[in-house]
Amino acid sequence: MFKLTNIQSHYEKPLKISIFFLFLLTLSLISFSTFAQTNLKIDSTLVKSFDKITRTALADTFGYNLLRELCAFGGRLSGSKNLINVEDFLLKKMSGLGFDTVYTQTFTTTNWQRGNVEKFILRGKNSGSDIKFEVAALGGSVGTEGILRADVIEISDFDELEKRKNEIKGKIVFFNFEFDQKVYDSFSSYGPAVNFRVNGVHRAAKYGAVAVLIRSVASNFDDVPHTGTLRYVDTIPKIPGVALGVRSAAFLAELLKNGQGEITQPLLFEMELDCKTEGTCEVKNLIAEIWGSENKNEVIVVGAHLDSWDKGEGAHDDGAGCVQSIEVLHLIKKMGIKPKRTIRAVLFANEENGLAGAKGYAKVTQDDVKKHYAAIESDRGGFVPRGFTTDAPPEVISKMSSWLPYFKMTGIEWFKNGGGGADISQIKGSKALIGFYPDSQRYFDVHHSENDVFSSVNHRELELGSASITILTLLLSEFGL
Amino acid sequence: MFKLTNIQSHYEKPLKISIFFLFLLTLSLISFSTFAQTNLKIDSTLVKSFDKITRTALADTFGYNLLRELCAFGGRLSGSKNLINVEDFLLKKMSGLGFDTVYTQTFTTTNWQRGNVEKFILRGKNSGSDIKFEVAALGGSVGTEGILRADVIEISDFDELEKRKNEIKGKIVFFNFEFDQKVYDSFSSYGPAVNFRVNGVHRAAKYGAVAVLIRSVASNFDDVPHTGTLRYVDTIPKIPGVALGVRSAAFLAELLKNGQGEITQPLLFEMELDCKTEGTCEVKNLIAEIWGSENKNEVIVVGAHLDSWDKGEGAHDDGAGCVQSIEVLHLIKKMGIKPKRTIRAVLFANEENGLAGAKGYAKVTQDDVKKHYAAIESDRGGFVPRGFTTDAPPEVISKMSSWLPYFKMTGIEWFKNGGGGADISQIKGSKALIGFYPDSQRYFDVHHSENDVFSSVNHRELELGSASITILTLLLSEFGL
Repeated sequence: MFKLTNIQSHYEKPLKISIFFLFLLTLSLISFSTFAQTNLKIDSTLVKSFDKITRTALADTFGYNLLRELCAFGGRLSGSKNLINVEDFLLKKMSGLGFDTVYTQTFTTTNWQRGNVEKFILRGKNSGSDIKFEVAALGGSVGTEGILRADVIEISDFDELEKRKNEIKGKIVFFNFEFDQKVYDSFSSYGPAVNFRVNGVHRAAKYGAVAVLIRSVASNFDDVPHTGTLRYVDTIPKIPGVALGVRSAAFLAELLKNGQGEITQPLLFEMELDCKTEGTCEVKNLIAEIWGSENKNEVIVVGAHLDSWDKGEGAHDDGAGCVQSIEVLHLIKKMGIKPKRTIRAVLFANEENGLAGAKGYAKVTQDDVKKHYAAIESDRGGFVPRGFTTDAPPEVISKMSSWLPYFKMTGIEWFKNGGGGADISQIKGSKALIGFYPDSQRYFDVHHSENDVFSSVNHRELELGSASITILTLLLSEFGL
Repeated sequence: MFKLTNIQSHYEKPLKISIFFLFLLTLSLISFSTFAQTNLKIDSTLVKSFDKITRTALADTFGYNLLRELCAFGGRLSGSKNLINVEDFLLKKMSGLGFDTVYTQTFTTTNWQRGNVEKFILRGKNSGSDIKFEVAALGGSVGTEGILRADVIEISDFDELEKRKNEIKGKIVFFNFEFDQKVYDSFSSYGPAVNFRVNGVHRAAKYGAVAVLIRSVASNFDDVPHTGTLRYVDTIPKIPGVALGVRSAAFLAELLKNGQGEITQPLLFEMELDCKTEGTCEVKNLIAEIWGSENKNEVIVVGAHLDSWDKGEGAHDDGAGCVQSIEVLHLIKKMGIKPKRTIRAVLFANEENGLAGAKGYAKVTQDDVKKHYAAIESDRGGFVPRGFTTDAPPEVISKMSSWLPYFKMTGIEWFKNGGGGADISQIKGSKALIGFYPDSQRYFDVHHSENDVFSSVNHRELELGSASITILTLLLSEFGL
């Protein structure tokens, strides 16, 4: 059962809002006291209480304002000074919010650095007539060690690679695989396309390729390259992996087909990258808890990852998820709710290139007296809420679906079978791993690119996400699964 | 029953897409032939056919590309050269798409012009220390006839206006009414706020005010003023009406409360506007039809308005609706579908400041041999689809709701009671007036402002809207209500 304690208000505008807040408090008192009694029966007073949570999130834009501050630090790559600054900033911030505890976990991971040079050009006949492509090294890529000169061969997919394996040696392999625009759910287009980003280098190096270019995994038509991690295989030489902007990729494909005019024949391509992996670095999970009033040792995790790629500001991926996770605790605290179970916000380290935070968290917590009851992850952008996916069995999904009337004001319309997220996937013993699912139309316009900045986040969409996750967290905490 | 004729392909990339298109065609043949037989039973093959329509819209981005061209002309205010250019451009475009007929209707409306000067400043102590506010004249406003100097009085709403009516004379009344951010549906916040934009001038002039300022009706926090129409009452003097950017409004409120420092006391405000209404202008409805194969004289209208405010490019309001209306016909044509009933796209003139197109259309068509069966309007932005509102009785809404499985791939999740839209509201005798309802979170960030530009439209969101409206149009045409 929820208990209302003295509410710590973080508002600074006194009069008008205090009255509104008293109003909220009164409504909360009425409704939360009916919460335990009603259980799974949908109660209109309870719906109103959740509406109040949503209205509060929309009105005070706590998460949106925090995201603005977070994004101002720039990209948060593991090992970067930016990330260290953000860890310090958020730790202070979280410690000032009155939660029951705030702490960190520190882990070590590899330290990849982009360096200063990333170039891919086609030499023109005369100086000044070179063609410059928009590129970004893939995360974890080795550098070129000086200028790499090689022919480019366009390959549409791995089937074609196998067929043409004898033509690969000494060449730069260009995987020009288009992001499928024809489906409603952008995440279903991500999987097939990202396969070439992740596995292109070792598949091509196996046949003697000297580097790999991929068409950016992106749903828009600009020329901003989208980076992201690649994978090397120990037994196969490591070659550089590079993402081309979508327009650059389309243009390169045309040139390879029709290359004429002011360009030297044969086509002279040059690649230069000074990215490298050098030693290790320390990264931190930031954790805050509100302890359960009845089942303190049952933990509901609300999580996201704090690191981001260095391009852009990691606003949607995953600054949005971080501020939403903190805001869940903040809203619970602010509304004066004492949840039955412990609510733990975890900002995981190093999701993008190592998963050191998630793996470390799972290891550290496995012998803890507190056990995981459920976990929710937000790592699909700060867009308008649509639903939740979960690995839970059908009867649990059905139970969650019976809660849908409680989400009326947030835009959540379904619970479906699906993954929870990369970070919480490491957690063992939880009854349900749940992924927040906002609308997916715009995510791959910004994902892993310099487009992923604060200005691409809409305050209403972000806050509706915070409200959705808060409501689900409270339902899990109070009703259980 | 749908009949497949020879398909006119508008694709220009030959090989790859043609194969995809043949695939579509084959699937369409299978599925549309089962359409008439299945009627209201949800048929998975038919679902696939509608999926094909959606995939086609997403893949060829016909509407998005057309919107880019449309927006390049700039704002489309009635009486502007831009609008005349767009009418010519679209008429040619529509005539080249192979529809059964394309024609125009011409009407006369008042010609309001913004002019070149719109200024609202607070005089500082020294030259150079003036404070400039971001303002835009409201549509239809009279000018100031030189510089207007007056005190500003802040009034929160019409109740306060009535209470303080004796303090109004000779002053500029500043209605600082905030857009309600606390609710899920932004359109429900629009009504209360827009009341001051529309009715502020005559309500204040009644008590001797010399001008009205309103806080922009906007859901974001920038300083871009949002214009829109105002209303004068014949018996009350016409005074200027001006929108302040949200930040300018907040700052003005602060100054009125605490005004100090480098500013002259008493506060010296100056307003200058040279907007005016001068004579009349001609505006056109653009209309295209695909004739029904069985009930040619029963018409389903898909409509939007072609004019826009002069600030911005009228991308969401309502360029999006225009290209979606054309795309409905284009998709039907391209898929080789012969609908039972006549499908008529109407791009209405002059919705923003007169409704001359909608009123004229209703008058012209009232004696037509063709009668309206249903009408769908898209005038709530080109955002991701959510649902449809309609004025139809509950049993018809229930019937439409039974069609929801056909919209699975577009994001449409509900049919609800609600308005169709300003333009189709003039149509008499239709069985249902239906409004397309995309997600509302971002609409009032751009509405009637210079933020309403092509770059704020996402191609996937826009095209999912086109697909949604096409599917509903076909269901109405084939199944009826």
